Amino acid sequence: MANGGDRRADVDGDRLWRRHTEMAELGATQKGGVNRAALTPADVEARARLAGWARDRGFTVEIDAYGNQFMRRPGAADAPAIASGSHSDTQPTGGRFDGISGVLSAVEALEAIDDAGIVTDRPLEAVIWNNEEGTRFSPTNLGSAVYVGAAPVDVMLAATDRDGVTMRSAVQTLREAVPWAGPRELGAPMAAFVESHIEQGPELEAEGLDIGIVTAIQGTRKLDVEVVGDEAHAGTTPERMRRDAFVDAVRIATALRELFHDPDDIMRFTIGRFEVSPGALAVVPGRVFFTVDIRHPDNATLARLGDRIEPVCRRAASRCDVRVAETRRADSTPFEGAVPEAIETAVRERGYSYKHMPSGAGHDARYVSEICPSGMVFVPCERGLSHNERENATPEDIARGAQIVADTLLILDERLP
Amino acid sequence: MANGGDRRADVDGDRLWRRHTEMAELGATQKGGVNRAALTPADVEARARLAGWARDRGFTVEIDAYGNQFMRRPGAADAPAIASGSHSDTQPTGGRFDGISGVLSAVEALEAIDDAGIVTDRPLEAVIWNNEEGTRFSPTNLGSAVYVGAAPVDVMLAATDRDGVTMRSAVQTLREAVPWAGPRELGAPMAAFVESHIEQGPELEAEGLDIGIVTAIQGTRKLDVEVVGDEAHAGTTPERMRRDAFVDAVRIATALRELFHDPDDIMRFTIGRFEVSPGALAVVPGRVFFTVDIRHPDNATLARLGDRIEPVCRRAASRCDVRVAETRRADSTPFEGAVPEAIETAVRERGYSYKHMPSGAGHDARYVSEICPSGMVFVPCERGLSHNERENATPEDIARGAQIVADTLLILDERLP
Repeated sequence: MANGGDRRADVDGDRLWRRHTEMAELGATQKGGVNRAALTPADVEARARLAGWARDRGFTVEIDAYGNQFMRRPGAADAPAIASGSHSDTQPTGGRFDGISGVLSAVEALEAIDDAGIVTDRPLEAVIWNNEEGTRFSPTNLGSAVYVGAAPVDVMLAATDRDGVTMRSAVQTLREAVPWAGPRELGAPMAAFVESHIEQGPELEAEGLDIGIVTAIQGTRKLDVEVVGDEAHAGTTPERMRRDAFVDAVRIATALRELFHDPDDIMRFTIGRFEVSPGALAVVPGRVFFTVDIRHPDNATLARLGDRIEPVCRRAASRCDVRVAETRRADSTPFEGAVPEAIETAVRERGYSYKHMPSGAGHDARYVSEICPSGMVFVPCERGLSHNERENATPEDIARGAQIVADTLLILDERLP
Repeated sequence: MANGGDRRADVDGDRLWRRHTEMAELGATQKGGVNRAALTPADVEARARLAGWARDRGFTVEIDAYGNQFMRRPGAADAPAIASGSHSDTQPTGGRFDGISGVLSAVEALEAIDDAGIVTDRPLEAVIWNNEEGTRFSPTNLGSAVYVGAAPVDVMLAATDRDGVTMRSAVQTLREAVPWAGPRELGAPMAAFVESHIEQGPELEAEGLDIGIVTAIQGTRKLDVEVVGDEAHAGTTPERMRRDAFVDAVRIATALRELFHDPDDIMRFTIGRFEVSPGALAVVPGRVFFTVDIRHPDNATLARLGDRIEPVCRRAASRCDVRVAETRRADSTPFEGAVPEAIETAVRERGYSYKHMPSGAGHDARYVSEICPSGMVFVPCERGLSHNERENATPEDIARGAQIVADTLLILDERLP
């Protein structure tokens, strides 16, 4: 059995949507969004309910040292699990889907398989990666990064929130809320991982497609640019005597935009922060600070164009001093092999429309792919809005995403050696 | 006697410089500048010392309802005075010359004329206009504007500072510190007014000139521009689907800069505030707010080019909405006739080098010119720096400016009908 097609488990779209609605009440904002930072009371309540549903099914629940939570349906063999999941925390003005929808889809997949009475070879797991958004605890970090050893657990547990609460004590609060959870070793092997997530971009909706099969999390480079001139009186200083940092920053921004123009519209180039000092009506600006965020799935393109930023900045400046500093660089993470292949099989068998596409944003699957074959399923969302209280998706699209997770778990159970 | 040249009164440069040093101690900042907002203890102390020197000379002192202070040397006739002066308040990080130098030059002129034993026909006055910088009391206003009736005194006296202190009570504090001051009616006639001020621009120094004879305070138009697009995720949103407010704002700023390019370098065009929202590294900006400040001595040019701002903004925007609102418009104020003619006579007779030039900044003389012939003398300052703790000027240049004030007062006393 190469495709798992003879073991059919149909998800319950109503149950899945009802749980989305229930979860959206935990941390609900007045504008219809969700504010549920990692391991705040609302997030702990969400975790406890999810752990409760798992317990009611007879699934086991485990929590690791960093607060990642694993809900396991046993398999016939005592082997590393095939897992799916995402995160339950949100941005401060976040929506009802980013993260939690991937968790609920994983839970629904396990329950649908359970409802169908299917016995898998391997255990199946629904995972909640802790602190994905990184807005409460600084330094920003991801539960998945700690789990795979890409970030040091002791440092991340010592991180404090604005009130001085450590992540270590926040994890303890979670444990107390889920006393039936057993321990889990950080880095314990997984057989494979599939993450379902809203696209957070507009392409699937615009093209009328059901599912995106993610080919890679694109690479990124982030730079700070500082332009320094001289403050001067706007009324008295002739143009020829000015060293206007705003004027040069605009020249630089224009030159960079030309550099990153991409007729194929794959390159992402954004100047998101742009701060003009002193920022007074009648004062010629003496300093501008701005950020450059570029992303591309192809590492060679990212390297070649990213390396041209500094010389282009210097050439575009007419009178001011320019400093360029790279603050972050991450290569593209490809998703190849067993998991995306299983996703494609599942999508084709269900007859859903789909396309292959890179992910613009980072996700937990990026880190998990360091320890096991991984992949991602994208679900359309309304107008691509995310990190936004107006974030939205349809029950039908959400159900299709969960169905693909369920089918992919079964296919992987068949195909994995 | 057409030129006053037979009544020679030479200023005492050492005394004048010593008083600059003494005044710079009142509100002195660590970086060598001055922080002396209107009618703060430091400013009241400055006012009291100036009033004390006047009393020691036998000059009369008057304070009007808004706190403008007049120190008068009587003349042979009981007629409106020929006046000179400026302001004693500073910017929060102001310098040692802006304002106070014009006051001290007027005082020095009166003392030099007194030392020379000259009896003038008209009284001569040294004036301190209250609250020129407008940084402590909002709404921003000028003592000279209230004096000439261009701003309502009751409203301006009711204005409060950050601590809730009214201008009315601040003026009362001044009165108590100068109990020998008599009252002065707002708008009481003056025969003429000459204001000496540091240039606050770099031209005189750059051209090696001693004196600037101000032809006009240039007109100005100030506008707010708002560019509204949509916030979006920097990693997931393709360029073709973005409405990036920063991108359009840069296009607009570039188009405006072309519009205001002036080969003669008379036009002043400044974008001083430029605020990008939400201003996050990974978020496509949804809104940009910026200000436009244009100034030109010619009202027709100001009208013609200023009226093109809104259409140019609209044409330059590619995808975002643009709103343009004019927040202030003031025509150019010319200085013509008796006062600049007297200044030119004085400069020529002293053999100083000079040029005619417009003033880029606003000054009290702008309002005073509404009630009597007025003019201004500019003195070179170091690198044009002003509204800056590093503001500087030489004792020799300051003395030349005071000399021209003294000579101009005497020439006007001869020439005025």
